[in-house]
Amino acid sequence: MYNVKAYSAISATSPLASATIPRRNSTESDVQIEILFCGICHSDVHQVRNEWSNVMPTIYPIVPGHEIIGRVIKIGSAVTKCKPGDLAAVGCLVDSDGTCPQCKAGLEQFCPNLTLTFNGTDKHLGGVTYGGYSDSIVVDERFVLRVPFNLDLAGAAPLLCAGITTYSPMRHWGVTQGKKVGVVGLGGLGHMGVKIAHALGSHVVAFTTSPSKKEDALRLGADEVVVSRSPDEMHKHTGSFDFILDTISADHDINTYINLLRRDGNITLVGAPAKPLDISAFGLIMGRRSLSGSNIGGIAETQEMLDFCGEHNITADVEVIPIQKVNEAYERLLKSDVKYRFCIDMASLKSE
Amino acid sequence: MYNVKAYSAISATSPLASATIPRRNSTESDVQIEILFCGICHSDVHQVRNEWSNVMPTIYPIVPGHEIIGRVIKIGSAVTKCKPGDLAAVGCLVDSDGTCPQCKAGLEQFCPNLTLTFNGTDKHLGGVTYGGYSDSIVVDERFVLRVPFNLDLAGAAPLLCAGITTYSPMRHWGVTQGKKVGVVGLGGLGHMGVKIAHALGSHVVAFTTSPSKKEDALRLGADEVVVSRSPDEMHKHTGSFDFILDTISADHDINTYINLLRRDGNITLVGAPAKPLDISAFGLIMGRRSLSGSNIGGIAETQEMLDFCGEHNITADVEVIPIQKVNEAYERLLKSDVKYRFCIDMASLKSE
Repeated sequence: MYNVKAYSAISATSPLASATIPRRNSTESDVQIEILFCGICHSDVHQVRNEWSNVMPTIYPIVPGHEIIGRVIKIGSAVTKCKPGDLAAVGCLVDSDGTCPQCKAGLEQFCPNLTLTFNGTDKHLGGVTYGGYSDSIVVDERFVLRVPFNLDLAGAAPLLCAGITTYSPMRHWGVTQGKKVGVVGLGGLGHMGVKIAHALGSHVVAFTTSPSKKEDALRLGADEVVVSRSPDEMHKHTGSFDFILDTISADHDINTYINLLRRDGNITLVGAPAKPLDISAFGLIMGRRSLSGSNIGGIAETQEMLDFCGEHNITADVEVIPIQKVNEAYERLLKSDVKYRFCIDMASLKSE
Repeated sequence: MYNVKAYSAISATSPLASATIPRRNSTESDVQIEILFCGICHSDVHQVRNEWSNVMPTIYPIVPGHEIIGRVIKIGSAVTKCKPGDLAAVGCLVDSDGTCPQCKAGLEQFCPNLTLTFNGTDKHLGGVTYGGYSDSIVVDERFVLRVPFNLDLAGAAPLLCAGITTYSPMRHWGVTQGKKVGVVGLGGLGHMGVKIAHALGSHVVAFTTSPSKKEDALRLGADEVVVSRSPDEMHKHTGSFDFILDTISADHDINTYINLLRRDGNITLVGAPAKPLDISAFGLIMGRRSLSGSNIGGIAETQEMLDFCGEHNITADVEVIPIQKVNEAYERLLKSDVKYRFCIDMASLKSE
């Protein structure tokens, strides 16, 4: 066991502040990674503030962060996936049982015994796992990902959650060339959704409540932009979408989007509104439409996504901040005052 | 044009009563059918009472009925599908444009220009179409179905709506041997769902609020019966279903059932609650589950279903009534006081 610097919160109402946390000594299958960048995900905020207490209560102190890019500094004797000096990435998962049907299907995100990167059960040290707002992390090589050499590292960090969360359902529901794809919301997830849907060759329509985001959406890769507050603009697209990715976690009327789906179309939720959604059965029945949810992706698919992003030179649009600005960044994130993801330059932690 | 006897309602608050309605003279592609039996569907009640006024307002007088079994009495010169004396069936649709992508895919139920069997736009006579609570009907042969010779005719009538409504989504979502399938609600639709899921070879679990229906559900083909009001009984099935057919049109908590689905499981609504459903996003996200709707089925699939039911000797459990008891039957249907479908013996109309 060794100690590393981190930023943690000690209660739902405390700001994040400098702290020291333990990391395990590497086992033979472990990779020790110096963290270079860590993206700030909306779920960091939810969990720091214990806003998902009914489904996954927060255990304090919490060190959030699951969009991790770093450099390998040490490997266990059995590690074959990487070597010291390599770039490496870690996403939302750091372990799973490896034996259940979900793991065997490469869908570790649904393993009943998975270990989340933070606020998960730490099988090695006891207590909870600590995430990427820290100097370094020790992770079993099965959960360490390769980073394409050409990607900007700060922009690549959000791929580990925002990237895979949008890529996975698009692949699952068959987004390809010739499909008409909607992306609802132009935040951290949504802007990645637009980029990825575009790179997959589909006709991309971005939905936003802010006319001011129109030009930006086109720049990100949208073929069309619809201001969702305009019933006329919405109506023109009735019954036309093969797939819609809904990234909104605020309360909103999803029936409006269900009606835009063609027969057998699917709308997938990747944001998780706290309040239940009001769904009209008629919208689903008329057109055999589906409403689904999707949760990050498995490890193999996360690597596939990183490789795809490497090939298409896709990264998130990030505002890089020092860790000392993380509490301010949380407030700005809640006001959607970021284009489109904050990413912490972890070098800033060295001065703490 | 010729006149036939029928039962119609003249307003949302009027009882059904004896009336005379016009039928067109057969065109060369038409089949004239003497109606022997007509099932009573819940949607007959909804539309007679104009309860779906926001999506399909009722035009009065209305002659409901879309579960029609009869005998061919006359055919047009171009008809090749049947001949006088043959048994024939008509379901919810009597026409569609035949040229749209939905029709070309054999999914006439989603054709934007479909004609419903009743309360639809009558392209031949103007006004609205009149349904099966009548002596006879004239239908284009494309919408006339063959009836397997071995089926009880009164019990076969409900196959035209309750049968296809449950068969179609099960086929679409891959219900086969080895799959675990739930059927929620044990009414007109639900009891057909149990029979068909059983005949498709799946492991069938019937959900009912009434412990008194347990034995009956087993008799209908369920392998297990769960009393949905028992949290313990429900909990035992968490994460285990490939597919659930939800036939409940009353307000109910569908999240309980979503949590019973395994990863990538689907729950399909075939009942249409008037109030929006409250759906928790977490239940869908954790397990990449889907909520869908389904609406009857196309003509080819309806024939497939009738042939399947012929092969497995499946009919609805019906209580046969004379048309003079139809208003009373509506009241009993609303109290679920029928096992499991009313079917009108149309011979009773001759005495009016």
